[in-house]
Amino acid sequence: MIERLAVIGVGLIGGSLARALKSAETVGEVIGCGRSRENLELALELGVIDGFSCDPAEAVRDADMVFIAVPLGAIARVFERIRGQLSEAAVVTDGGSVKGSVVADAKRVFGEIPPWLVPGHPIAGTEHNGVASSFPELYRHRRVILTPLAQTDADARARVRAMWEQTGAEVTEMSVAHHDEVLAATSHLPHMLAFGLVDALSRMRSNDEIFRYAAGGFRDFTRIASSSPEMWRDICLANADALSTMLARFGAEMGKLSETIRREDGETLLRIFERARAARDRYVDGVGAEGDGSSRADKTPD
Amino acid sequence: MIERLAVIGVGLIGGSLARALKSAETVGEVIGCGRSRENLELALELGVIDGFSCDPAEAVRDADMVFIAVPLGAIARVFERIRGQLSEAAVVTDGGSVKGSVVADAKRVFGEIPPWLVPGHPIAGTEHNGVASSFPELYRHRRVILTPLAQTDADARARVRAMWEQTGAEVTEMSVAHHDEVLAATSHLPHMLAFGLVDALSRMRSNDEIFRYAAGGFRDFTRIASSSPEMWRDICLANADALSTMLARFGAEMGKLSETIRREDGETLLRIFERARAARDRYVDGVGAEGDGSSRADKTPD
Ligand SMILES: NC(=O)c1ccc[n+]([C@@H]2O[C@H](COP(=O)([O-])OP(=O)(O)OC[C@H]3O[C@@H](n4cnc5c(N)ncnc54)[C@H](OP(=O)(O)O)[C@@H]3O)[C@@H](O)[C@H]2O)c1
Ligand SMILES: NC(=O)c1ccc[n+]([C@@H]2O[C@H](COP(=O)([O-])OP(=O)(O)OC[C@H]3O[C@@H](n4cnc5c(N)ncnc54)[C@H](OP(=O)(O)O)[C@@H]3O)[C@@H](O)[C@H]2O)c1
Repeated sequence: MIERLAVIGVGLIGGSLARALKSAETVGEVIGCGRSRENLELALELGVIDGFSCDPAEAVRDADMVFIAVPLGAIARVFERIRGQLSEAAVVTDGGSVKGSVVADAKRVFGEIPPWLVPGHPIAGTEHNGVASSFPELYRHRRVILTPLAQTDADARARVRAMWEQTGAEVTEMSVAHHDEVLAATSHLPHMLAFGLVDALSRMRSNDEIFRYAAGGFRDFTRIASSSPEMWRDICLANADALSTMLARFGAEMGKLSETIRREDGETLLRIFERARAARDRYVDGVGAEGDGSSRADKTPD
Repeated sequence: MIERLAVIGVGLIGGSLARALKSAETVGEVIGCGRSRENLELALELGVIDGFSCDPAEAVRDADMVFIAVPLGAIARVFERIRGQLSEAAVVTDGGSVKGSVVADAKRVFGEIPPWLVPGHPIAGTEHNGVASSFPELYRHRRVILTPLAQTDADARARVRAMWEQTGAEVTEMSVAHHDEVLAATSHLPHMLAFGLVDALSRMRSNDEIFRYAAGGFRDFTRIASSSPEMWRDICLANADALSTMLARFGAEMGKLSETIRREDGETLLRIFERARAARDRYVDGVGAEGDGSSRADKTPD
């Protein structure tokens, strides 16, 4: 049971955690915090939070759990504002999509990794942002990755794990570096391709005609290109090394695939497509399927 | 009204056309044709066709409309088999995803572009193949592109257009070359990226772990990588020029984007992502949205 939860950044991720814990009845009071009053008032109206402050220092007062869910570029400033303001019992965790940058920010602001900080990342989300898009089931059957450090307090870790389990999520742990590599591959790279593709097409001569003939596959493929530009800029900057390496490698592979097509090497093409289909069918729609989908709609064959 | 429709290749595309015309009650009899008896027997059982032959020459006998929906690599052989076998009244059209190769095949087999041939392409489909996946609403509110040539008979063109309109599709016309360029951008390139991404990840060291942490965005993004490898090999070979050029250019752009990330140029990243999101929201979910989706499920925000 959390008595007082402070949510810094009451958007899709922060709002959904608050809603999930409220509907599980495992939280007493939720205090929101953000930049704009309007958003916090909306969150209050929606029943996502019970009170708010625009000052993180005030919001965390007497909180036993603090969840930071602002864009990655804003996390250091939140750390600065809450330094020295936390109660004795407080545990702090976050939902940032990259963990290396959060840990580096913490080290810089606090001088060392605080034992009460448990970096985390829910592998769940949508291309819609804002508290109005938040919903209590967002984390159900999804994975949440925690990346505790050697310094992390065992009790803090257990409390953060318990909180996520109350939302219906499955909690796993891994190292910070491993998290950032895995996510570069499965999330950050695909987002770059989707943003890059839509941007490339929008710069083509007859781009309105081009989009007119885009079919359903295209719509699914590019859905993630409707995600928040600021959030993704921050993710790129926070995971620049792993992501730029992976993207450069992928760009070169596409150059090679282009050559394979140009020399009309049907056998190699078939092998690549077969390997890809088998992998996707096995991992994405097979083992990993339940609970890994972000869609609330039950997907029929399309 | 079509009295006798011959469908060569009774799979997703051919089967769905037969079903659509049957449910619109604008076709008399449907004769199927394919490689394997099993599939045709299944089609018969499902009520998609009323009879079948494994020989295209026999299947087209007395047909007033012939629809060819085999993979692109098999179209030339169908042309060879039906040469000289068509009735006086017959019109032939196809559903191949690339039009240049179909026209080249026709020229080679028939010596010239026959006036009764109306090349076409329904911009509709799913990642599932086979007659069992076919359904009558596949073409409803979707676009069908016809690429008639100077030699094409006006009456043939009108009859093919009318047939597609009876399925609920919106028919447009464009040149063969333009079709192949537009589709390279909106369909063939995204498929290469999806196949390429899943293949690349499946070759990474801890690939099963990687897929385990793939979230819903990944599932949508890579859905098209579950499409038929043979069909896509044929599409690549048939549209090799336009596609390899586009893919090489995109690969190079991803190299540039990688550089932008490496030098942590947040402003440029933000500009790219904003442009992409605006384009997608405007074209894909806005204007072009109705009827361009391939999904039968109503997509809720995800
Ligand atoms: N969306 C996803 O799919 C997803 C998935 C997993 C993890 N994450 C991570 O979760 C975090 C939040 O993402 P989200 O999708 O919830 O975004 P969101 O819906 O846009 O919410 C972000 C919230 O943070 C506040 N905020 C924005 N910029 C701020 C700043 N400079 N200083 C202080 N507060 C600021 C906003 O408040 P105001 O309205 O007052 O500006 C807003 O309420 C990010 O770190 C992201 O990497 C996102
Ligand atoms: N799927 C899409 O999203 C989509 C969209 C628009 C256009 N298209 C085009 O439509 C055509 C058919 O695609 P589809 O999705 O309907 O494929 P499909 O479901 O696999 O059906 C193809 C049919 O063609 C037959 N066939 C396969 N290879 C053949 C060969 N070598 N000789 C004779 N018949 C053969 C198969 O019969 P057997 O079972 O007897 O082998 C099968 O019934 C392709 O040209 C494709 O480019 C597809």
